Amino acid sequence: MPFISLLTDFGLQDPYVGIMKGVIHTLSPQAQLIDLSHGIPPQDVAAARFALMTAYPYLPSGTIHLAVVDPGVGSSRRAVAIQTETGFLVGPDNGLFSGVLAQTPALAAVELNRPRYWRTPSPSRTFHGRDIFAPVAAHLANGIPLAELGDPLDVAELTRWEWPPPQMETNGCRGLVQAIDHFGNGITNLPGQWVEGRSWSASVKGIPVRSVATFAEGEVGEVLALVGSSGWVEIAQNRGNASRTLDFKVGDEVRVQWDS
Amino acid sequence: MPFISLLTDFGLQDPYVGIMKGVIHTLSPQAQLIDLSHGIPPQDVAAARFALMTAYPYLPSGTIHLAVVDPGVGSSRRAVAIQTETGFLVGPDNGLFSGVLAQTPALAAVELNRPRYWRTPSPSRTFHGRDIFAPVAAHLANGIPLAELGDPLDVAELTRWEWPPPQMETNGCRGLVQAIDHFGNGITNLPGQWVEGRSWSASVKGIPVRSVATFAEGEVGEVLALVGSSGWVEIAQNRGNASRTLDFKVGDEVRVQWDS
Amino acid sequence: MPFISLLTDFGLQDPYVGIMKGVIHTLSPQAQLIDLSHGIPPQDVAAARFALMTAYPYLPSGTIHLAVVDPGVGSSRRAVAIQTETGFLVGPDNGLFSGVLAQTPALAAVELNRPRYWRTPSPSRTFHGRDIFAPVAAHLANGIPLAELGDPLDVAELTRWEWPPPQMETNGCRGLVQAIDHFGNGITNLPGQWVEGRSWSASVKGIPVRSVATFAEGEVGEVLALVGSSGWVEIAQNRGNASRTLDFKVGDEVRVQWDS
Repeated sequence: MPFISLLTDFGLQDPYVGIMKGVIHTLSPQAQLIDLSHGIPPQDVAAARFALMTAYPYLPSGTIHLAVVDPGVGSSRRAVAIQTETGFLVGPDNGLFSGVLAQTPALAAVELNRPRYWRTPSPSRTFHGRDIFAPVAAHLANGIPLAELGDPLDVAELTRWEWPPPQMETNGCRGLVQAIDHFGNGITNLPGQWVEGRSWSASVKGIPVRSVATFAEGEVGEVLALVGSSGWVEIAQNRGNASRTLDFKVGDEVRVQWDS
Repeated sequence: MPFISLLTDFGLQDPYVGIMKGVIHTLSPQAQLIDLSHGIPPQDVAAARFALMTAYPYLPSGTIHLAVVDPGVGSSRRAVAIQTETGFLVGPDNGLFSGVLAQTPALAAVELNRPRYWRTPSPSRTFHGRDIFAPVAAHLANGIPLAELGDPLDVAELTRWEWPPPQMETNGCRGLVQAIDHFGNGITNLPGQWVEGRSWSASVKGIPVRSVATFAEGEVGEVLALVGSSGWVEIAQNRGNASRTLDFKVGDEVRVQWDS
Repeated sequence: MPFISLLTDFGLQDPYVGIMKGVIHTLSPQAQLIDLSHGIPPQDVAAARFALMTAYPYLPSGTIHLAVVDPGVGSSRRAVAIQTETGFLVGPDNGLFSGVLAQTPALAAVELNRPRYWRTPSPSRTFHGRDIFAPVAAHLANGIPLAELGDPLDVAELTRWEWPPPQMETNGCRGLVQAIDHFGNGITNLPGQWVEGRSWSASVKGIPVRSVATFAEGEVGEVLALVGSSGWVEIAQNRGNASRTLDFKVGDEVRVQWDS
């Protein structure tokens, strides 16, 4: 029985996540669930894309990733299920999956347009997570083939959303903060490979930050640049919250300069 | 093996929810747990009643609903277990279950007064979730009959708590905001059936709001009225937080007016 | 198949907890997980120690406790696994386990220095939860003996961290607030046994507070002292938040005085 991962912006205050789990277990009592996050900022597709891309490589092979951050629910945005080499993606076709699909190709995709695989043929216009996506994830867990769930889509037509790519320059490189985590670490879109084996320093909003291999190399309270656990250059603070200390936010520019 | 759902106001910062799960799994290692919410505002029985009523129809048949929002713990309020057509309810008898019981009748109820089904014959005076309710839910999951767990209660004597009912009027109808969700949507107590098939508009605190079928019909930032996913008239904002924008709160009046 | 409990300061906004669960289930698909808390304040080892100590007695026998609050990650702090009479502890050796170990002795301990039991022989320098601790917990769940996982450690050398012990005095006793929970209850380090059977009152920051057996004995809004569910003297408010009302914090002194 495969795993189903869940990623939403529903929060944990309301019962919406529990409702989706109830719908899944009603159809697939044996499915095992793994929560990735329900704390994506409301309707923030870019944050959801980053979280799913970050977690994806660590989930068991065959996992069905159910992701619902869906500001366009009720509009003409497509509902999709996608097969990759290592699992399935189920959710709205709004760019949420484009981070994963930049790492691992889509092998096949369908538009979820067959009401017999929904919870009801008259789904709510505002909660497709409950009425379309959760039932489809449960059917995949039960072994229903992807091709049964809807009409085939050309994978090249799936919606992509990407940050402007980082730039390699003569004296360094330039990117941006693509996410800020719970610890206040700023995770850039600069690949760790670009700086590894070099001697370098960084700057955020013009404020210089020295590079280290690990938090513990810095003084207590020092803001540092390092290659983080997901393979990106990060701006972090030893026993502190770098985002709050330097007042940076998602989208702010980060520069790296090679030591001369 | 049936599912056990959990609903509390314990939050997820403290280990109290994990302790209840540990107690359940100590008695019933095979039980499967579904979290509905642990973010009910502290001691807010009305919010817990609404969340449980909203989630109840979507959980698998036979689910044991363990709900602990219990400002009267240690007083003379009764501890109860209730059987319905589709499952069980376990928790304090303070009105928490009255939303579910307005939808589906109580078939039988017992007062939880048999210490052999508790974690200890000397339960804590402040944490019945751990010492009485979680063990009882585990025993139900293990197949102990309801009637074993305590002396029978007349279901008509169970504590009920309801909002003042909505009013149908000549030119429209009138109700109130019974809950505000994580997205800032105000969920009223006006049934969707009262407005469906009609042309209507709403007002909250005197501010007019037009009705739509789905968020995406509104302009970005527009506050809208629509029938939400749980079947109530909702006040929502397209890509925004209606509660913050219009500054409404639980209990505020909502009026609906038929278009003439 | 034993249970694995999880305790971290990762929060639930980011996918870090889900990543650890993915790593566990990749190695041990049958493992059953119980979340204790992921809302420990960032890098607050004392809070993590208290939460784990509080939850520990209620988890099923044999549970593997995976706890990662790890401000020293990447420094020379040891990674350890510890066997007790009733289970296992896996995490950084920074004092996090000293509350549990004050209740139940360590029978054996190893330093986690065998990369073949890690997720990768080149673990991240900042996320040992993913690369070392989660895999080791999964291997223990799969039945790998503790002694396989690393070189033996003298249990007397494990890092201990304790609050200054409470003091018994002629007219009462004196301790401090060791934790404040989600309800605003201040949990002191004064054992309930020190006051039970006596007539007593307390004071926090010089403000007198009368003792009761249970919240419900107080007036609505009254701040009270009572023996809480974990066996410590607590400062609580009937239907309110005592910490906010009296403005106390972790570490503040609490005095108990016998009635004369």
